[in-house]
Amino acid sequence: MTPAPRYLTGDKEGIKEFLDRFDVFLFDCDGVLWSGDLVYPGTVETLEMLRSNGKQVVFVTNNSTKSRADYRKKLEKLGIPSSTEEIFSSSYSASIYISRILKLPENKRKVFIIGETGIEQELETENVPFIGGTDPAYRRDVTTEDYKLITSGDSSLIDPEVGVVLVGLDRHINYLKLALAYHYVKRGAVFLATNIDSTYPNEGALFPGAGSMSAPLIMMLGQEPVSLGKPNQAMMDAIEGKFKFDRSRTCMVGDRVNTDIRFGVEGKLGGTLGVLTGVSTKEDFLAGPTRPAIYLDKLSDLLDAK
Amino acid sequence: MTPAPRYLTGDKEGIKEFLDRFDVFLFDCDGVLWSGDLVYPGTVETLEMLRSNGKQVVFVTNNSTKSRADYRKKLEKLGIPSSTEEIFSSSYSASIYISRILKLPENKRKVFIIGETGIEQELETENVPFIGGTDPAYRRDVTTEDYKLITSGDSSLIDPEVGVVLVGLDRHINYLKLALAYHYVKRGAVFLATNIDSTYPNEGALFPGAGSMSAPLIMMLGQEPVSLGKPNQAMMDAIEGKFKFDRSRTCMVGDRVNTDIRFGVEGKLGGTLGVLTGVSTKEDFLAGPTRPAIYLDKLSDLLDAK
Repeated sequence: MTPAPRYLTGDKEGIKEFLDRFDVFLFDCDGVLWSGDLVYPGTVETLEMLRSNGKQVVFVTNNSTKSRADYRKKLEKLGIPSSTEEIFSSSYSASIYISRILKLPENKRKVFIIGETGIEQELETENVPFIGGTDPAYRRDVTTEDYKLITSGDSSLIDPEVGVVLVGLDRHINYLKLALAYHYVKRGAVFLATNIDSTYPNEGALFPGAGSMSAPLIMMLGQEPVSLGKPNQAMMDAIEGKFKFDRSRTCMVGDRVNTDIRFGVEGKLGGTLGVLTGVSTKEDFLAGPTRPAIYLDKLSDLLDAK
Repeated sequence: MTPAPRYLTGDKEGIKEFLDRFDVFLFDCDGVLWSGDLVYPGTVETLEMLRSNGKQVVFVTNNSTKSRADYRKKLEKLGIPSSTEEIFSSSYSASIYISRILKLPENKRKVFIIGETGIEQELETENVPFIGGTDPAYRRDVTTEDYKLITSGDSSLIDPEVGVVLVGLDRHINYLKLALAYHYVKRGAVFLATNIDSTYPNEGALFPGAGSMSAPLIMMLGQEPVSLGKPNQAMMDAIEGKFKFDRSRTCMVGDRVNTDIRFGVEGKLGGTLGVLTGVSTKEDFLAGPTRPAIYLDKLSDLLDAK
């Protein structure tokens, strides 16, 4: 069990000491910087304060629906300055994993996607071929004929070159996609997920997340996917590979104990900061076994150190 | 551990004694009476023999997509005489559970369905109001507006009278339905499933089953549904409620140890009969912990008692 967290809201000295201990801040976004389309007051000023104090800021998101470029645009639209290089998403993480770490045979390099455009764009960046995803051909009802074609492995529906099934949030999830993903894995494809968050927050409530797209497959297959998002350390390794940071001087900031905080704790970062503007409650932060080192009512409480 | 099963194929006296001990036979169908569209030789004659000896025959199926009336038509098409009254499906079981066992407040009697026409027809039979299901209004993409309306509980999308979410196999499963089901349960609706089989067999392969429709909700809610299909005893209670049988003089017949036989054993029926024409093998029947009291190579071996 990690030690009980310190509550620093209003504690000027505590906050100052906390900030001095780190060079790099990894930020979860939704629930920390904003919720849905609502940027929390003080978000921009807090990031500006950190940058002006020489801190490296990295936006680490399990959001797989947007590419890093799209995500930067989203930040811009929300009034948060950033560069694409500061953004690390689960779809980017997954693309790197597929292109550089998985050793796929030449004739099994295609990815069947359950997910949206973010995954497609990042796979394109890494020159990984794919099918499924946003292709309208998969947005249809399953037919009696489909059952036969899938069962027989007919190449009109089952692509023999698919060696990976990658599952992220897909708001066009349907029966056909689930059936195909199941059969690809049964035929030997590697089962990957951009992330396994069961929900994602929007408009102040929770909606089905990427993990909920994997859930039927997990139940059918009796097998968990390799997740390339928080809290999986494959993502931390990928971030470290890119930013070459000193883990002891890096702090993970997030609202979810079981993804963000766990990600930082298991990654042996120097610190973890929980904020109460998202999913986890104060009780969650205190209960353990995984707990943040520090927690605040809200991120902008860091401005008290000024 | 239940006692080791007796093998009665070819044992005339044993079969006669076995038959004499029961007044009611509950039949699993696929794997016992037929496989796919192939009726096993002797199925019709065996049922006829039981009926002519005054036995009550009940067809017990987890299939939620068909109503009992539709299921009777399926039996008829296969050449198996039956009456709707002899059929007990998981959608009927769920309907009875909702209408007669759940004590819902007058203003919370509506059911939100993820599922197909079988569920709708059975709810209608029991005069239970419902929304969702096959309504084309729910077969659409989720919109930005939906997130707001769902979050605020706007009555244009969230019906305040919904007190139950019932999930069965739905080949038009989509994001909107999952989001609505989740929010109804979060608002206090009872979470029910017709059954929790993760897959269902079709064309000799497996496809997503009713349990796979519940899987995202189970993951999001951290809560299992009450299942009204085998092996859940809510289904046995519902069957007993309808047929008023003496459990000690009732025998469950099935091919699957972990659903059919378990259903009978946990229901404390007088007997369980396993047949080797479906999923479970002789080794499964002998291994335990759950084992049938009796097993046969095939159902029609009962005809030896004539």
